[in-house]
This record gives sequence, C-alpha cells and structure tokens, in this order.
Amino acid sequence: MARGGARLTGDEFNSLPVAVDAMGGDRAPGEIVAGALEVAAKTDIKVVLVGPPGDMGDIGDLPFLPAHEVIGMDDDPGQGVRRKKDSTLVRAAEAVRDGKAMAMVSAGNTGAAMASALLRMGRLPSVIRPAIATPIPNLQRSWPTVLLDSGANAECTPPMLVQFAQMGAAFARKRYAVDMPRVALLSIGEEKSKGSPLVKETHALLEAGGADSGFDFVGNVEGRDFFEPTIDVIVTDGFTGNVALKTLEGSLRFLIGAVTEILARPELKQAADDLYPHLLPLAAPLDPENTGGAMLLGVNGVCVISHGSSSSVAIVNAITVAHDVAVAGLVDAVAASVTTMPAGD
Amino acid sequence: MARGGARLTGDEFNSLPVAVDAMGGDRAPGEIVAGALEVAAKTDIKVVLVGPPGDMGDIGDLPFLPAHEVIGMDDDPGQGVRRKKDSTLVRAAEAVRDGKAMAMVSAGNTGAAMASALLRMGRLPSVIRPAIATPIPNLQRSWPTVLLDSGANAECTPPMLVQFAQMGAAFARKRYAVDMPRVALLSIGEEKSKGSPLVKETHALLEAGGADSGFDFVGNVEGRDFFEPTIDVIVTDGFTGNVALKTLEGSLRFLIGAVTEILARPELKQAADDLYPHLLPLAAPLDPENTGGAMLLGVNGVCVISHGSSSSVAIVNAITVAHDVAVAGLVDAVAASVTTMPAGD
Repeated sequence: MARGGARLTGDEFNSLPVAVDAMGGDRAPGEIVAGALEVAAKTDIKVVLVGPPGDMGDIGDLPFLPAHEVIGMDDDPGQGVRRKKDSTLVRAAEAVRDGKAMAMVSAGNTGAAMASALLRMGRLPSVIRPAIATPIPNLQRSWPTVLLDSGANAECTPPMLVQFAQMGAAFARKRYAVDMPRVALLSIGEEKSKGSPLVKETHALLEAGGADSGFDFVGNVEGRDFFEPTIDVIVTDGFTGNVALKTLEGSLRFLIGAVTEILARPELKQAADDLYPHLLPLAAPLDPENTGGAMLLGVNGVCVISHGSSSSVAIVNAITVAHDVAVAGLVDAVAASVTTMPAGD
Repeated sequence: MARGGARLTGDEFNSLPVAVDAMGGDRAPGEIVAGALEVAAKTDIKVVLVGPPGDMGDIGDLPFLPAHEVIGMDDDPGQGVRRKKDSTLVRAAEAVRDGKAMAMVSAGNTGAAMASALLRMGRLPSVIRPAIATPIPNLQRSWPTVLLDSGANAECTPPMLVQFAQMGAAFARKRYAVDMPRVALLSIGEEKSKGSPLVKETHALLEAGGADSGFDFVGNVEGRDFFEPTIDVIVTDGFTGNVALKTLEGSLRFLIGAVTEILARPELKQAADDLYPHLLPLAAPLDPENTGGAMLLGVNGVCVISHGSSSSVAIVNAITVAHDVAVAGLVDAVAASVTTMPAGD
C-alpha cells in the first residue's frame, strides 16, 4: 500500500517533517511562516515550508520545497489543482504521497486543499468519499465534538454517512483518546421516524451496525445539541454540516461581537476590567485559532485544513495536531475502521 | 373560495376573534389563558379559547369553543389529527375554516398544528406544500429576517423552494412592510455553482424569475449570514432550515447561559449590576418570547405556532401578530404571490 510514508519504517516516518503551505490563507505568508518558525524553535517537530523561494519572506533556517504557483481563495478547486501543478497545495500533497512529509497543513482554499489531497495522496481503500471533520469546542469536558462532513460532499448517500461515522469514531479515538466514541446522526427530531430519507436510511444502517463497529451509535440529535457533553461525533451530509457549522460560528461571533461592543462603552470601563479575566477562559476554547483546524479523513495521508484567517497561533496548533495524529497512526486507524457497506452504494 | 372567513365582509372578518389553543405548550393552560386574558383586557383584539370546559382553569369572561381532547407534544402529528377529531388543535383550525375565528394560535405540537391547519383549512390554490416561516431577530434594523422552511418539509423540490421564496416575500411585505424583500437562498458558498443539486436548480429558477416576481433575488447566502441586515428572507428546505434554526438558537442560548453563569459569581456582583442594563436591550430581541412565533404559510387561514415553552408574554405577542396579519390580508397576499412553476413538479 502506498500510504503516505508507510513504505518507511516507523522511526523513518516519525522523523519526517510536516509540510506547511506557506502561501495559503488570508495572512500568508507572514503568519504562516511565523507559525512554522515557532514550531521549529520550540518543539521537536520538523517542518518544511512549501512555497516560492524568495516570496515567503524571512524563513530563517527552515527547509523548504519549491512550488511556484498559488491556488487562490476564490479559484475553482478542481481547475486550480488540474492547472496549477506546481502550486503549493499540490506540492504539499505530493510531499506526503512521496514519503517526504508525514502530513500537510494549509490555511488556503479548502476545496483545493481537499482536491489536492484526494488527487495526489488518493483515497483509502473502500472509502467512498473523504469527509472534513471539524472539532466543535465543548466547555463541559476536555475534548471537542467532531462534526463530519462539514463541507466536502454536498450530496451524500447512506453508505457514505455510515463511513463518516466510522471515520469520525476512528478520529475521536486517535486524536482525543475517546475509547468508545458516542456517534450521533444530525436530524430534525430525536425519533428515528424523523428526518430526510437520507437520515432515516442511515439511521437504520447504523442501528444494524452492531457491537463490533467500534463506536456507540446514540441515535439522532438536533441542531441544538452541538454543545452537549454526551456526544463525541456528529454525522451529517456536507451540505447540512457546512450550513450548521457556519451558523454555529456565525451565531457565536455575532453575540461575542455584540457583547464586546457593549463592554467597550466608556461608562463600563470598570465592569469590563473586572469581567475580562473571567470571560477569557470562556472565549479561548471557542476561538477557532485554538482548535488545530479541520481534518480531511479518508485520504491516504494526514491533511489539516486551518481557517482562512489563521494567525501564527492557529498554524502552530495545526502543525502540532498534524504531527501528533500522523505519529499516532491516524491514517491506518481510519483505513481499518471503514467497511464496505453490504447495501453497496 | 372557502378562504378562512373570506365569505364574510371585511368588517365581519375583522370583528372575528383569534382562536387560541388553551392546552398547547409546556405551560398550558395557565400561561396560555393568562396571555389570552391579557390581550382581552388590554387591547381591542377578540380572543376565543379552544379547550375542555372546566380544565382550563379560571378563564374569566373569555368565550371558549369546547374541545375535549389534546394532542400531546410527543404524539405523532398525522395520527393525532386523524384520531383526535375533538382536539383543541383540530377545533381551532375548524374555527378558522368555518369563519368563526380570523386566525389560530398554538404553542403545542408543531407538526400537529401544521397538520390540523393543512387538513382542516386546506392548502391555498397552486401551493405545492405549506412552509413554516420563522423570524430571526436582526439587531441592526427594526425587522427580522424570515427563514423558511424551518421544518415543515424534510424533503423539497426546486419548485417548492421557489414558492417558499414567493410566500416568504409576501409575508415580509405584509408583516414587516418590506416593499421589495431581498430573498436569498441558503447554500454552502456564494457562487451559484456551489451547493446541492436542489440549491443549484432552485438558484437557476429564481434567477429566471424576472422583475415582476415581487422580490429581489440576491443569490446564495451561508450559515454565517443569518444576522446580516442586507437580507429579508432566507429560503431553504425544511431539513436544513430546522437544523440551522436550532443550531442558531442553541448557540445563542449556550453562550448567553455561559455569560450569565459568569456574571452570577459573587466577586462580579458590581460588574453585573453595571452591565445588565446594557445587556438587556441586546437580549430582549433575541428572546423567542418576543418574536410572535412562527407562521405556517400556504394554508387557507392564519396559523401562528408559538414556542413550546411559551409564557403569557409569548402568547400575547403571538395573538397580536395573528390578528395583525389576518386583518392585513396575509392569506390573500400569499395566495396572490404563488405561481405554478412552468417546470411543474
């Protein structure tokens, strides 16, 4: 199997660098390079930048892989990957494929990062479609809830959703050490009779999955349940998942913005000074900068997709997460979790 | 046309009461009756309670229509309406159908309220499926954004979504006096190439709708755009709409709860006292109690569905809204807005 770096021994693989797309994101290359430099300075994790030599600014002693094109945030992902064969994203994915990097990290065009990983690393055996897994912070425990698919596949079938459950559970196990992840299906009512035909059929398949599935299927949940501490993985199609994720992020941002505006009023200076030390521990876990980014599951290598607005802090987290799951064997775990549906697709 | 009360003259219709389901909601009958009594005492709006005589508590001088059964929050909507022909919901819908009430209001089982209205009042001509329209508060202007369908139809076709756009625009015009509503389609990217097949086909139909549609189609929006002041109506299928609405409500509730908990800390007493007068004007419009409830559009009568946890305040608002849109001719406006799709369905 040509799994990224898998032809290497464990020690060889573990000494590979994480490939970082130096040109991806609204604040590239400055914040990206700063994050990579910080990781190199403060940890044992190796980093290789992927970008146009000379256009990345001061990269210090960091090694780099040359790539002379950039797929922009507004470029069509498929066309971008097909036409820009020397782009940072394509070269980063090739580095993983060729055993030159243990993982790739990008804050660039999400669709293009996905397409690069899919086309260059390839799908894992039996995987119908890769999915994007996004951590939703949970304030009542130390690990987040994993939402997938949060945007890779606008149209899904029940067997795809069953595989998302399997891959999401494998991810929760490897990334957050949740032994028996509780997996829920996003719907519009808790009863199994509720929902779209896709949800009802998936519910039946997951219920029939049995005890050896490696996760605990806990039934349907609703949009209001994203912050419940009793769920580890929430499965849905990429259209619903993307709408829900952006609604959640937008609602939190809206309210945080409104409260921040109030706290900036001159007559509330003292109250704000008293309050901020208490608010920060609440705000920190909700900040996408701190979650380490989303993860593309189902491809033959580790691919972390960080927020487009990522600062160096987000990049440090993304590189660390990419390294940790790569070393922990996430790709093998995902590959082992996926079964071919008896119903086919 | 047997439109609810439409056989009556304008004056006769305008003097009809609003039928209120006395037994619907978690806090029925107490809070429901209290709300009805308050409306009767403080406004010119007439109210008729629908419920089991003797089981509604002290209803003062309020008139009532007897109904001896209740469809519970967990009852199957279709079965409930078919089997409980003497239920408060069915009787309320019949009152509108028979010209005994100008509108109905319920805080009970949403699906059963919908089924009662649909089966007893009937669909408006040409309407493929009724939809639930829910107001999303907007802090930057005086009127909310209307989301539909927020849960009536888990499965939709492009012609249905086009009609939701037409009905939502008619509602925004009648209820919020928005002359030329800006209607957007909920998707996972602003480009028309993005989204599910349903969204792409609907986009094409709405774009082809032309200038005489009575609304301004502004293209796709994403989950993060619910609080944008540049959109009046957001159209989606009932599955996505329900997930998005509950995600939005759940996210706001989660954050409001977390901040409230912080403000309750003893060492923050002074800061909280200073802050609350500033926070309340933010919280009030976000409170579902104040929005007047969701509206079922496409049936032959006015049907307002209030939150299950409605207090008397929510019921006062719901009755007032039901009265106002009934008198304003909402049903005629919705009927006039709906066209049969050339593509059929």
